[in-house]
Amino acid sequence: MNTTRKITERRLNRMIQVLKRRQPDLTVVLENVHDPHNVSAVLRSCDAVGVLAVHLVYTIEEFPDLSKNVSGSALKWLEIIKHKDIQDCYDTLRSQGMTIYTTYLADPQRSHDLYSLDLTKPTALVFGNEQRGVSEEASRLADGNFVIPMMGMVQSLNISVACAVTLYEALRQRRAAGHYDHPKLSREEISTRLHNWLQREKRSIEELQKLI
Amino acid sequence: MNTTRKITERRLNRMIQVLKRRQPDLTVVLENVHDPHNVSAVLRSCDAVGVLAVHLVYTIEEFPDLSKNVSGSALKWLEIIKHKDIQDCYDTLRSQGMTIYTTYLADPQRSHDLYSLDLTKPTALVFGNEQRGVSEEASRLADGNFVIPMMGMVQSLNISVACAVTLYEALRQRRAAGHYDHPKLSREEISTRLHNWLQREKRSIEELQKLI
Ligand SMILES: C[S@@+](CC[C@H](N)C(=O)[O-])C[C@H]1O[C@@H](n2cnc3c(N)ncnc32)[C@H](O)[C@@H]1O
Ligand SMILES: C[S@@+](CC[C@H](N)C(=O)[O-])C[C@H]1O[C@@H](n2cnc3c(N)ncnc32)[C@H](O)[C@@H]1O
Repeated sequence: MNTTRKITERRLNRMIQVLKRRQPDLTVVLENVHDPHNVSAVLRSCDAVGVLAVHLVYTIEEFPDLSKNVSGSALKWLEIIKHKDIQDCYDTLRSQGMTIYTTYLADPQRSHDLYSLDLTKPTALVFGNEQRGVSEEASRLADGNFVIPMMGMVQSLNISVACAVTLYEALRQRRAAGHYDHPKLSREEISTRLHNWLQREKRSIEELQKLI
Repeated sequence: MNTTRKITERRLNRMIQVLKRRQPDLTVVLENVHDPHNVSAVLRSCDAVGVLAVHLVYTIEEFPDLSKNVSGSALKWLEIIKHKDIQDCYDTLRSQGMTIYTTYLADPQRSHDLYSLDLTKPTALVFGNEQRGVSEEASRLADGNFVIPMMGMVQSLNISVACAVTLYEALRQRRAAGHYDHPKLSREEISTRLHNWLQREKRSIEELQKLI
Protein backbone atom coordinates (compact mmCIF):
# COMPACT_ATOMS: atom_id res chain seq x y z
CA MET A 1 0.00 0.00 0.00
CA ASN A 2 2.69 2.43 1.08
CA THR A 3 4.88 1.47 -1.87
CA THR A 4 2.05 2.12 -4.29
CA ARG A 5 1.61 5.52 -2.65
CA LYS A 6 5.28 6.40 -3.03
CA ILE A 7 5.43 5.28 -6.62
CA THR A 8 2.40 7.36 -7.34
CA GLU A 9 4.00 10.45 -5.83
CA ARG A 10 7.22 10.05 -7.80
CA ARG A 11 5.16 9.48 -10.87
CA LEU A 12 3.01 12.50 -10.12
CA ASN A 13 6.13 14.69 -10.01
CA ARG A 14 7.35 13.09 -13.20
CA MET A 15 4.07 13.89 -14.93
CA ILE A 16 4.23 17.51 -13.83
CA GLN A 17 7.81 17.84 -15.09
CA VAL A 18 6.79 16.29 -18.40
CA LEU A 19 3.79 18.58 -18.80
CA LYS A 20 5.99 21.61 -18.05
CA ARG A 21 8.20 20.60 -21.00
CA ARG A 22 5.40 19.91 -23.47
CA GLN A 23 5.66 21.86 -26.74
CA PRO A 24 2.14 22.76 -27.91
CA ASP A 25 3.73 24.61 -30.85
CA LEU A 26 5.32 21.47 -32.33
CA THR A 27 3.08 18.88 -33.89
CA VAL A 28 3.01 15.89 -36.20
CA VAL A 29 0.42 14.98 -38.84
CA LEU A 30 0.17 11.36 -39.94
CA GLU A 31 -1.48 10.89 -43.34
CA ASN A 32 -2.57 7.28 -43.84
CA VAL A 33 0.49 5.76 -42.12
CA HIS A 34 -0.80 2.24 -41.64
CA ASP A 35 1.79 -0.08 -40.09
CA PRO A 36 1.09 -0.32 -36.33
CA HIS A 37 4.81 -0.86 -35.64
CA ASN A 38 5.59 2.44 -37.37
CA VAL A 39 2.75 4.36 -35.74
CA SER A 40 3.69 3.18 -32.30
CA ALA A 41 7.35 4.13 -32.82
CA VAL A 42 6.19 7.59 -34.04
CA LEU A 43 4.09 8.09 -30.90
CA ARG A 44 7.01 7.12 -28.65
CA SER A 45 9.22 9.69 -30.39
CA CYS A 46 6.50 12.36 -30.14
CA ASP A 47 6.18 11.84 -26.40
CA ALA A 48 9.97 11.85 -26.05
CA VAL A 49 10.51 15.26 -27.65
CA GLY A 50 7.50 16.81 -25.93
CA VAL A 51 4.87 16.87 -28.66
CA LEU A 52 1.47 17.55 -27.08
CA ALA A 53 -0.97 16.56 -29.83
CA VAL A 54 -0.75 14.35 -32.91
CA HIS A 55 -3.08 14.94 -35.87
CA LEU A 56 -4.42 12.06 -37.95
CA VAL A 57 -5.74 12.22 -41.50
CA TYR A 58 -6.88 8.74 -42.46
CA THR A 59 -8.79 9.00 -45.73
CA ILE A 60 -7.62 5.74 -47.35
CA GLU A 61 -6.26 3.47 -44.64
CA GLU A 62 -7.74 3.08 -41.15
CA PHE A 63 -5.74 4.12 -38.11
CA PRO A 64 -4.09 0.88 -37.00
CA ASP A 65 -5.01 -1.08 -33.89
CA LEU A 66 -2.21 -0.45 -31.39
CA SER A 67 -3.71 -2.41 -28.52
CA LYS A 68 -1.59 -5.50 -29.15
CA ASN A 69 1.59 -3.45 -29.11
CA VAL A 70 3.21 -2.84 -25.71
CA SER A 71 5.03 0.24 -26.90
CA GLY A 72 1.71 1.56 -28.19
CA SER A 73 1.40 2.82 -24.65
CA ALA A 74 2.80 6.23 -25.65
CA LEU A 75 -0.71 6.82 -27.00
CA LYS A 76 -1.94 7.66 -23.52
CA TRP A 77 0.49 10.55 -23.09
CA LEU A 78 -0.60 12.28 -26.29
CA GLU A 79 -3.67 14.10 -27.46
CA ILE A 80 -4.94 12.47 -30.65
CA ILE A 81 -6.93 14.65 -33.02
CA LYS A 82 -8.71 13.09 -35.99
CA HIS A 83 -9.63 15.03 -39.11
CA LYS A 84 -11.94 14.16 -41.96
CA ASP A 85 -9.57 15.45 -44.63
CA ILE A 86 -6.34 17.36 -45.12
CA GLN A 87 -8.09 20.74 -45.56
CA ASP A 88 -9.85 20.32 -42.22
CA CYS A 89 -6.54 19.42 -40.58
CA TYR A 90 -4.66 22.38 -42.06
CA ASP A 91 -7.47 24.80 -41.06
CA THR A 92 -7.06 23.68 -37.46
CA LEU A 93 -3.26 23.95 -37.58
CA ARG A 94 -3.33 27.39 -39.21
CA SER A 95 -5.80 28.65 -36.61
CA GLN A 96 -3.06 27.74 -34.10
CA GLY A 97 -0.46 29.77 -36.00
CA MET A 98 1.49 26.76 -37.28
CA THR A 99 3.67 26.71 -40.38
CA ILE A 100 2.96 23.44 -42.17
CA TYR A 101 5.77 21.44 -43.78
CA THR A 102 5.25 18.25 -45.75
CA THR A 103 7.76 15.55 -46.61
CA TYR A 104 6.96 15.23 -50.30
CA LEU A 105 9.72 13.10 -51.77
CA ALA A 106 8.53 13.21 -55.38
CA ASP A 107 9.93 16.71 -55.88
CA PRO A 108 13.20 17.09 -53.96
CA GLN A 109 14.20 20.13 -56.07
CA ARG A 110 11.48 22.21 -54.51
CA SER A 111 12.29 21.06 -50.98
CA HIS A 112 14.11 22.63 -48.08
CA ASP A 113 16.84 20.66 -46.41
CA LEU A 114 15.70 19.63 -42.90
CA TYR A 115 18.72 21.34 -41.35
CA SER A 116 17.86 24.67 -42.96
CA LEU A 117 14.46 24.87 -41.22
CA ASP A 118 13.88 26.98 -38.13
CA LEU A 119 12.02 24.48 -35.97
CA THR A 120 11.85 26.75 -32.94
CA LYS A 121 8.84 28.45 -34.60
CA PRO A 122 5.34 26.94 -34.34
CA THR A 123 5.58 24.01 -36.75
CA ALA A 124 3.46 21.13 -38.01
CA LEU A 125 5.29 18.29 -39.78
CA VAL A 126 3.38 16.02 -42.18
CA PHE A 127 4.47 12.41 -42.77
CA GLY A 128 2.97 10.06 -45.31
CA ASN A 129 2.01 6.51 -46.09
CA GLU A 130 4.65 3.78 -46.29
CA GLN A 131 4.11 3.15 -50.01
CA ARG A 132 2.54 6.30 -51.45
CA GLY A 133 4.18 8.95 -49.26
CA VAL A 134 2.43 12.28 -48.58
CA SER A 135 -0.41 13.01 -50.99
CA GLU A 136 0.01 15.58 -53.72
CA GLU A 137 -2.87 17.54 -52.18
CA ALA A 138 -1.30 17.65 -48.71
CA SER A 139 1.93 18.90 -50.27
CA ARG A 140 0.25 21.52 -52.46
CA LEU A 141 -1.77 23.01 -49.60
CA ALA A 142 1.19 23.17 -47.19
CA ASP A 143 3.49 26.16 -46.61
CA GLY A 144 6.55 24.27 -47.71
CA ASN A 145 8.22 20.97 -48.17
CA PHE A 146 11.41 19.50 -46.70
CA VAL A 147 13.59 16.43 -47.06
CA ILE A 148 16.06 14.75 -44.78
CA PRO A 149 19.33 14.57 -46.74
CA MET A 150 20.24 11.08 -47.95
CA MET A 151 23.79 10.17 -48.97
CA GLY A 152 23.24 6.53 -49.92
CA MET A 153 21.62 4.23 -52.45
CA VAL A 154 18.20 3.78 -50.84
CA GLN A 155 15.54 6.31 -51.85
CA SER A 156 13.69 6.86 -48.59
CA LEU A 157 13.86 6.27 -44.87
CA ASN A 158 11.39 4.34 -42.80
CA ILE A 159 8.58 6.74 -41.78
CA SER A 160 9.12 6.34 -38.04
CA VAL A 161 12.82 6.98 -38.55
CA ALA A 162 12.14 10.07 -40.70
CA CYS A 163 9.73 11.45 -38.12
CA ALA A 164 12.17 10.89 -35.23
CA VAL A 165 15.12 12.46 -37.07
CA THR A 166 12.99 15.54 -37.77
CA LEU A 167 11.57 15.80 -34.24
CA TYR A 168 15.01 15.41 -32.68
CA GLU A 169 16.36 18.20 -34.87
CA ALA A 170 13.50 20.28 -33.44
CA LEU A 171 14.47 19.19 -29.91
CA ARG A 172 18.10 20.09 -30.55
CA GLN A 173 17.18 23.57 -31.78
CA ARG A 174 14.54 24.15 -29.12
CA ARG A 175 16.68 22.98 -26.24
CA ALA A 176 19.47 25.34 -27.34
CA ALA A 177 16.90 28.15 -27.49
CA GLY A 178 15.62 27.38 -23.96
CA HIS A 179 12.18 26.12 -25.01
CA TYR A 180 12.17 23.35 -22.40
CA ASP A 181 13.15 25.64 -19.53
CA HIS A 182 9.79 27.30 -18.91
CA PRO A 183 6.31 25.79 -19.25
CA LYS A 184 4.50 26.63 -22.48
CA LEU A 185 1.17 25.32 -21.20
CA SER A 186 -0.76 27.52 -18.79
CA ARG A 187 -1.24 26.44 -15.17
CA GLU A 188 -4.85 25.49 -16.02
CA GLU A 189 -3.86 23.44 -19.06
CA ILE A 190 -1.27 21.58 -17.02
CA SER A 191 -3.72 20.75 -14.26
CA THR A 192 -6.46 19.60 -16.64
CA ARG A 193 -4.06 17.31 -18.39
CA LEU A 194 -2.55 16.09 -15.15
CA HIS A 195 -6.03 15.27 -13.94
CA ASN A 196 -6.71 13.18 -17.05
CA TRP A 197 -3.39 11.36 -16.76
CA LEU A 198 -3.99 10.63 -13.08
CA GLN A 199 -7.45 9.24 -13.76
CA ARG A 200 -5.86 6.74 -16.10
CA GLU A 201 -3.02 5.96 -13.69
CA LYS A 202 -5.39 5.44 -10.80
CA ARG A 203 -7.43 3.11 -12.89
CA SER A 204 -4.40 1.10 -13.88
CA ILE A 205 -3.06 0.95 -10.30
CA GLU A 206 -6.47 -0.33 -9.19
CA GLU A 207 -6.40 -2.89 -11.95
CA LEU A 208 -2.93 -3.88 -10.82
CA GLN A 209 -4.04 -4.30 -7.23
CA LYS A 210 -6.84 -6.61 -8.23
CA LEU A 211 -4.20 -8.87 -9.68
CA ILE A 212 -2.06 -8.99 -6.53
CA MET B 1 17.74 -2.09 -74.71
CA ASN B 2 18.84 1.52 -74.93
CA THR B 3 16.76 2.44 -71.89
CA THR B 4 18.35 -0.31 -69.82
CA ARG B 5 21.75 1.02 -70.91
CA LYS B 6 20.90 4.55 -69.87
CA ILE B 7 19.50 3.49 -66.52
CA THR B 8 22.61 1.46 -65.90
CA GLU B 9 24.84 4.44 -66.64
CA ARG B 10 22.89 6.78 -64.40
CA ARG B 11 23.00 4.15 -61.72
CA LEU B 12 26.70 3.65 -62.19
CA ASN B 13 27.29 7.36 -61.60
CA ARG B 14 24.99 7.23 -58.61
CA MET B 15 27.01 4.36 -57.12
CA ILE B 16 30.26 6.22 -57.61
CA GLN B 17 28.86 9.35 -55.94
CA VAL B 18 27.59 7.24 -53.05
CA LEU B 19 30.93 5.47 -52.61
CA LYS B 20 32.71 8.83 -52.62
CA ARG B 21 30.55 9.89 -49.68
CA ARG B 22 30.91 6.70 -47.63
CA GLN B 23 32.21 7.24 -44.08
CA PRO B 24 34.46 4.30 -43.16
CA ASP B 25 35.10 6.03 -39.82
CA LEU B 26 31.47 5.88 -38.70
CA THR B 27 30.00 2.53 -37.81
CA VAL B 28 27.15 0.82 -36.01
CA VAL B 29 27.23 -2.28 -33.82
CA LEU B 30 24.01 -4.25 -33.34
CA GLU B 31 24.00 -6.44 -30.24
CA ASN B 32 21.21 -9.04 -30.45
CA VAL B 33 18.67 -6.69 -32.07
CA HIS B 34 16.17 -9.28 -33.22
CA ASP B 35 13.10 -7.71 -34.87
CA PRO B 36 13.56 -7.85 -38.68
CA HIS B 37 11.49 -4.66 -39.07
CA ASN B 38 13.92 -2.81 -36.76
CA VAL B 39 17.05 -4.27 -38.33
CA SER B 40 15.93 -3.39 -41.82
CA ALA B 41 15.10 0.21 -40.78
CA VAL B 42 18.55 0.46 -39.15
CA LEU B 43 20.26 -0.69 -42.35
CA ARG B 44 18.31 1.85 -44.44
CA SER B 45 19.45 4.63 -42.10
CA CYS B 46 23.06 3.39 -42.18
CA ASP B 47 23.10 3.50 -45.97
CA ALA B 48 21.46 6.94 -45.93
CA VAL B 49 24.10 8.61 -43.75
CA GLY B 50 26.98 6.86 -45.51
CA VAL B 51 27.95 4.11 -43.07
CA LEU B 52 30.22 1.63 -44.87
CA ALA B 53 30.15 -1.40 -42.58
CA VAL B 54 27.78 -2.64 -39.86
CA HIS B 55 29.03 -4.94 -37.10
CA LEU B 56 26.88 -7.70 -35.65
CA VAL B 57 27.25 -9.37 -32.27
CA TYR B 58 24.55 -12.04 -31.99
CA THR B 59 25.33 -14.15 -28.94
CA ILE B 60 21.75 -14.76 -27.74
CA GLU B 61 19.39 -14.09 -30.64
CA GLU B 62 20.05 -15.01 -34.27
CA PHE B 63 20.38 -12.31 -36.89
CA PRO B 64 16.87 -12.03 -38.33
CA ASP B 65 15.84 -13.19 -41.79
CA LEU B 66 15.42 -10.03 -43.88
CA SER B 67 14.63 -11.76 -47.15
CA LYS B 68 10.86 -11.25 -46.81
CA ASN B 69 11.30 -7.56 -46.21
CA VAL B 70 11.48 -5.33 -49.29
CA SER B 71 13.27 -2.59 -47.41
CA GLY B 72 15.81 -5.17 -46.27
CA SER B 73 17.39 -4.35 -49.61
CA ALA B 74 19.69 -1.80 -47.94
CA LEU B 75 21.65 -4.88 -46.88
CA LYS B 76 23.26 -5.05 -50.28
CA TRP B 77 24.82 -1.60 -50.01
CA LEU B 78 26.52 -2.34 -46.70
CA GLU B 79 29.39 -4.48 -45.57
CA ILE B 80 28.18 -6.81 -42.82
CA ILE B 81 30.78 -8.04 -40.35
CA LYS B 82 29.88 -10.76 -37.84
CA HIS B 83 31.73 -11.26 -34.56
CA LYS B 84 31.70 -14.15 -32.14
CA ASP B 85 31.53 -11.90 -29.07
CA ILE B 86 31.75 -8.29 -27.97
CA GLN B 87 35.49 -8.48 -27.17
CA ASP B 88 36.24 -9.69 -30.69
CA CYS B 89 34.12 -6.87 -32.11
CA TYR B 90 35.77 -4.16 -30.01
CA ASP B 91 39.27 -5.46 -30.88
CA THR B 92 38.45 -5.00 -34.56
CA LEU B 93 36.99 -1.53 -34.02
CA ARG B 94 39.93 -0.39 -31.88
CA SER B 95 42.40 -1.63 -34.49
CA GLN B 96 40.62 0.83 -36.82
CA GLY B 97 41.08 3.69 -34.36
CA MET B 98 37.40 3.96 -33.38
CA THR B 99 36.08 5.37 -30.13
CA ILE B 100 33.30 3.05 -28.96
CA TYR B 101 30.11 4.44 -27.41
CA THR B 102 27.30 2.30 -26.05
CA THR B 103 23.71 3.25 -25.38
CA TYR B 104 23.42 1.81 -21.88
CA LEU B 105 20.14 3.12 -20.51
CA ALA B 106 20.42 1.52 -17.06
CA ASP B 107 22.84 4.18 -15.86
CA PRO B 108 21.92 7.58 -17.34
CA GLN B 109 23.99 9.41 -14.69
CA ARG B 110 27.21 8.13 -16.18
CA SER B 111 26.17 8.93 -19.74
CA HIS B 112 27.02 11.67 -22.14
CA ASP B 113 24.22 13.52 -23.84
CA LEU B 114 24.17 12.64 -27.56
CA TYR B 115 24.49 16.31 -28.50
CA SER B 116 27.69 16.70 -26.48
CA LEU B 117 29.55 14.04 -28.51
CA ASP B 118 32.00 14.92 -31.26
CA LEU B 119 30.81 12.54 -33.97
CA THR B 120 33.21 13.84 -36.59
CA LYS B 121 35.90 11.63 -35.00
CA PRO B 122 36.13 7.90 -35.84
CA THR B 123 33.18 6.50 -33.93
CA ALA B 124 31.42 3.17 -33.35
CA LEU B 125 27.92 3.30 -31.88
CA VAL B 126 26.52 0.25 -30.08
CA PHE B 127 22.75 -0.41 -29.96
CA GLY B 128 21.07 -3.17 -27.99
CA ASN B 129 18.27 -5.67 -27.89
CA GLU B 130 14.64 -4.49 -27.87
CA GLN B 131 13.96 -5.85 -24.37
CA ARG B 132 17.32 -6.14 -22.61
CA GLY B 133 19.16 -3.20 -24.17
CA VAL B 134 22.96 -3.21 -24.50
CA SER B 135 24.66 -5.81 -22.29
CA GLU B 136 26.48 -4.77 -19.16
CA GLU B 137 29.67 -6.25 -20.65
CA ALA B 138 29.41 -4.25 -23.87
CA SER B 139 28.94 -1.09 -21.83
CA ARG B 140 31.80 -1.83 -19.43
CA LEU B 141 34.31 -2.53 -22.20
CA ALA B 142 33.36 0.56 -24.25
CA ASP B 143 35.05 3.97 -24.11
CA GLY B 144 31.90 5.72 -23.02
CA ASN B 145 28.17 5.71 -22.93
CA PHE B 146 25.58 8.14 -24.26
CA VAL B 147 21.84 8.73 -24.20
CA ILE B 148 19.47 10.57 -26.45
CA PRO B 149 17.65 13.09 -24.23
CA MET B 150 14.02 12.22 -23.51
CA MET B 151 11.51 14.82 -22.30
CA GLY B 152 8.42 12.62 -22.01
CA MET B 153 6.84 9.80 -20.07
CA VAL B 154 8.14 6.83 -22.05
CA GLN B 155 11.47 5.39 -20.92
CA SER B 156 13.12 4.50 -24.21
CA LEU B 157 12.88 4.98 -27.95
CA ASN B 158 12.47 2.28 -30.53
CA ILE B 159 15.96 0.97 -31.44
CA SER B 160 15.75 1.88 -35.14
CA VAL B 161 14.61 5.36 -34.15
CA ALA B 162 17.45 5.74 -31.61
CA CYS B 163 20.00 4.60 -34.17
CA ALA B 164 18.72 6.99 -36.85
CA VAL B 165 18.61 10.00 -34.50
CA THR B 166 22.24 9.30 -33.54
CA LEU B 167 23.44 8.72 -37.09
CA TYR B 168 21.74 11.87 -38.35
CA GLU B 169 23.39 13.90 -35.62
CA ALA B 170 26.65 12.47 -36.98
CA LEU B 171 25.61 13.44 -40.52
CA ARG B 172 24.74 16.97 -39.38
CA GLN B 173 28.13 17.42 -37.70
CA ARG B 174 30.07 15.75 -40.48
CA ARG B 175 28.37 17.62 -43.29
CA ALA B 176 29.12 20.93 -41.55
CA ALA B 177 32.76 19.80 -41.22
CA GLY B 178 32.97 18.90 -44.93
CA HIS B 179 33.29 15.14 -44.46
CA TYR B 180 31.09 14.37 -47.47
CA ASP B 181 32.98 16.68 -49.82
CA HIS B 182 36.02 14.50 -50.49
CA PRO B 183 36.18 10.70 -50.76
CA LYS B 184 37.41 8.92 -47.64
CA LEU B 185 37.85 5.61 -49.45
CA SER B 186 40.91 5.21 -51.67
CA ARG B 187 40.53 4.91 -55.44
CA GLU B 188 41.18 1.15 -55.12
CA GLU B 189 38.63 0.68 -52.37
CA ILE B 190 36.02 2.53 -54.42
CA SER B 191 36.64 0.45 -57.51
CA THR B 192 36.59 -2.87 -55.62
CA ARG B 193 33.28 -1.98 -54.04
CA LEU B 194 31.87 -0.63 -57.27
CA HIS B 195 32.81 -3.89 -58.94
CA ASN B 196 30.93 -5.88 -56.29
CA TRP B 197 27.89 -3.64 -56.55
CA LEU B 198 27.87 -3.88 -60.34
CA GLN B 199 28.07 -7.66 -60.27
CA ARG B 200 24.88 -7.66 -58.24
CA GLU B 201 23.21 -5.05 -60.43
CA LYS B 202 24.11 -6.85 -63.63
CA ARG B 203 22.62 -9.98 -62.27
CA SER B 204 19.40 -8.24 -61.40
CA ILE B 205 19.16 -6.44 -64.75
CA GLU B 206 19.59 -9.79 -66.48
CA GLU B 207 16.87 -11.23 -64.29
CA LEU B 208 14.72 -8.25 -65.19
CA GLN B 209 15.25 -8.78 -68.91
CA LYS B 210 14.17 -12.37 -68.67
CA LEU B 211 10.85 -11.08 -67.40
CA ILE B 212 10.33 -8.62 -70.27
C1 LIG C 1 8.80 5.14 -47.08
S1 LIG C 1 8.43 6.80 -47.23
C2 LIG C 1 7.38 6.87 -48.66
C3 LIG C 1 8.11 6.67 -49.92
C4 LIG C 1 7.30 7.06 -51.13
N1 LIG C 1 7.77 6.30 -52.24
C5 LIG C 1 7.41 8.55 -51.44
O1 LIG C 1 7.80 8.91 -52.54
O2 LIG C 1 7.08 9.38 -50.60
C6 LIG C 1 7.21 7.09 -45.99
C7 LIG C 1 7.29 8.46 -45.37
O3 LIG C 1 8.52 8.59 -44.65
C8 LIG C 1 8.95 9.94 -44.66
N2 LIG C 1 10.31 10.00 -45.25
C9 LIG C 1 11.05 8.96 -45.69
N3 LIG C 1 12.24 9.38 -46.13
C10 LIG C 1 12.27 10.73 -45.96
C11 LIG C 1 13.23 11.76 -46.21
N4 LIG C 1 14.44 11.51 -46.72
N5 LIG C 1 12.88 13.03 -45.90
C12 LIG C 1 11.69 13.32 -45.35
N6 LIG C 1 10.76 12.39 -45.09
C13 LIG C 1 11.03 11.12 -45.38
C14 LIG C 1 7.92 10.71 -45.46
O4 LIG C 1 6.98 11.28 -44.58
C15 LIG C 1 7.27 9.64 -46.30
O5 LIG C 1 5.94 10.00 -46.66
C1 LIG D 1 13.92 -0.38 -26.44
S1 LIG D 1 15.56 -0.02 -26.07
C2 LIG D 1 15.94 -1.15 -24.74
C3 LIG D 1 15.31 -0.77 -23.47
C4 LIG D 1 15.90 -1.52 -22.29
N1 LIG D 1 14.90 -1.61 -21.30
C5 LIG D 1 17.15 -0.84 -21.76
O1 LIG D 1 17.18 -0.49 -20.58
O2 LIG D 1 18.12 -0.64 -22.48
C6 LIG D 1 16.48 -0.78 -27.36
C7 LIG D 1 17.71 -0.02 -27.76
O3 LIG D 1 17.34 1.24 -28.32
C8 LIG D 1 18.36 2.19 -28.05
N2 LIG D 1 17.75 3.34 -27.34
C9 LIG D 1 16.45 3.48 -26.98
N3 LIG D 1 16.25 4.66 -26.37
C10 LIG D 1 17.46 5.29 -26.32
C11 LIG D 1 17.92 6.55 -25.81
N4 LIG D 1 17.10 7.43 -25.23
N5 LIG D 1 19.24 6.83 -25.95
C12 LIG D 1 20.08 5.98 -26.56
N6 LIG D 1 19.69 4.79 -27.06
C13 LIG D 1 18.41 4.44 -26.95
C14 LIG D 1 19.43 1.49 -27.24
O4 LIG D 1 20.44 1.03 -28.10
C15 LIG D 1 18.68 0.30 -26.64
O5 LIG D 1 19.55 -0.77 -26.38
